[in-house]
Amino acid sequence: MKNILCVLPVEQRHKDKLEKAAAGCPIIYSSPDKVTDEQIAAANVILGCVDAKRVKASENLELFQLNTAGTDPYIVPGVLHENTVLCNATGAYSKAVAEHALASLLMLQKKLHRYRDAQRENNWTDFGTVSSITDFTVLVVGLGDIGCHFARLVKALGAYVIGVKRRPSAKPDCVDELYTQEELEKLLPRADVVFNILPGTGGTHHLYTEEYFRLMKDSAIFINCGRGGAVASEVLYKAISEKMIASAAIDVTEVEPLPADSPLWQLDDLVITPHVSGYYHLPHTFECIVEIAAENLAHYFAGEEPRNVVDFTTGYKK
Amino acid sequence: MKNILCVLPVEQRHKDKLEKAAAGCPIIYSSPDKVTDEQIAAANVILGCVDAKRVKASENLELFQLNTAGTDPYIVPGVLHENTVLCNATGAYSKAVAEHALASLLMLQKKLHRYRDAQRENNWTDFGTVSSITDFTVLVVGLGDIGCHFARLVKALGAYVIGVKRRPSAKPDCVDELYTQEELEKLLPRADVVFNILPGTGGTHHLYTEEYFRLMKDSAIFINCGRGGAVASEVLYKAISEKMIASAAIDVTEVEPLPADSPLWQLDDLVITPHVSGYYHLPHTFECIVEIAAENLAHYFAGEEPRNVVDFTTGYKK
Repeated sequence: MKNILCVLPVEQRHKDKLEKAAAGCPIIYSSPDKVTDEQIAAANVILGCVDAKRVKASENLELFQLNTAGTDPYIVPGVLHENTVLCNATGAYSKAVAEHALASLLMLQKKLHRYRDAQRENNWTDFGTVSSITDFTVLVVGLGDIGCHFARLVKALGAYVIGVKRRPSAKPDCVDELYTQEELEKLLPRADVVFNILPGTGGTHHLYTEEYFRLMKDSAIFINCGRGGAVASEVLYKAISEKMIASAAIDVTEVEPLPADSPLWQLDDLVITPHVSGYYHLPHTFECIVEIAAENLAHYFAGEEPRNVVDFTTGYKK
Repeated sequence: MKNILCVLPVEQRHKDKLEKAAAGCPIIYSSPDKVTDEQIAAANVILGCVDAKRVKASENLELFQLNTAGTDPYIVPGVLHENTVLCNATGAYSKAVAEHALASLLMLQKKLHRYRDAQRENNWTDFGTVSSITDFTVLVVGLGDIGCHFARLVKALGAYVIGVKRRPSAKPDCVDELYTQEELEKLLPRADVVFNILPGTGGTHHLYTEEYFRLMKDSAIFINCGRGGAVASEVLYKAISEKMIASAAIDVTEVEPLPADSPLWQLDDLVITPHVSGYYHLPHTFECIVEIAAENLAHYFAGEEPRNVVDFTTGYKK
């Protein structure tokens, strides 16, 4: 009998689905806060994100199914035993994050952030010309599930889409052109929108330097739903306040929560959301996560390779 | 020789286009502010919106090409001579207004208006669950050029679309279901979004009564880019403050500009833009208007029926 531990906020219908996949093996339900160190140490399977520090390279842990797409804290050496199979929830967040990014992009294009500010001062003011997505070249930096979903959305609205991937591959239909990350610098001057959706790994830390922002059009819109560490706060502040680009929307910040005294908050042409594009804000996301967890539980009991297995050296899905 | 008067803010390339269409007949260029009463009285053709009060039913005026889609002030009896052919700029605004409406809709869906308010208070706060356009039934009230363009956009993003038209016709591809305006009451309870894009005519004044808002879902989003008169300010205030619906975005108000002391300004879940979705905010719009004006000028000199001729009794394109 295996020890299956689930810390996802499941309802009865989710339990039914997981238990069916567990083929008669009971599941212990808890939460990331209430789960005990003993339960973690005894678990052969954990479903849901348990604090990385509490896993202590447990030898018992065979399958660890995260409820996040990001894997940063779990691939640090010493956190997991080398035999643990780590799986992420890639795919579950595509719709939620891509739609949030699209909403942010259109908001900036139509200057709705400025109109909202004016509204709060009972002020009927015209902020001038706007732009259309049909005239835009959108650069998607990070062409995983979320990047592809976003690419499909903006393409459906009429944008021209350039995708950037870590590794060379055949061009998917969701983009008009495809390049590898090495070519990013050459692509920045062509973009009306730069959408960063790279995960948080060593290779993406402070990727967007001041020079990168200077390479962008001064009319460009920058959107970051990847990791806040991809841009240093000072660089972002400078890029917007010195008008290297027109505006930006960020759902992630270098330090989270963004400190109350950060000068970023009061930039007129920066829109900040508090890392809400993903998580469980769109109910659909959680349904997908339970779906992935049930599927991988079934694979585990059938002795099959699960889906979304994470490569410890890259932090990406293998 | 005909008197052609143009009050559109044209550049040289626009003039070239219009003069080519005028087949050698000179064009007098002015602006709505600077044009003289003598110029208006002498004109056989006017391109652009001259103040309705100054036209004085001029007998000379044969073709009056507006730069607006709305025709309200010009179809009032006594403004135009019965022989004047009035044309509007229907079609020129489709992209601009439909994209503005879409941006407003996604902003409300993802609660970006609330996050903007929190940002202005340096406040990292989570406003909870959001919705997806893929789960939404969108009701488009007024299926002219703008309504159809908007329908295509939301359909491309995955919405189910119901269109409402004044007169019965074959269902266009941009909607999943089509009804006439008489059936509006029955459709309101089904809608997650009600997008009003009806023009300002007697039949649409105060169309959205308190009863109509009560018929909508309490999770519904109302968007008005048609005419402000379609909803009384008090009714809209009540509908939102009493949570008959979840939120609304309006680009038009019953009185414009919206008075600084209007209680509408400070409603958290109402987004107000100052009648900017159309006009010339998207440069594309003006290019379309010049295109229509040139085309109709050519039709005029060729003795042909122009496009976008307005029916004086309805205010709509014939």
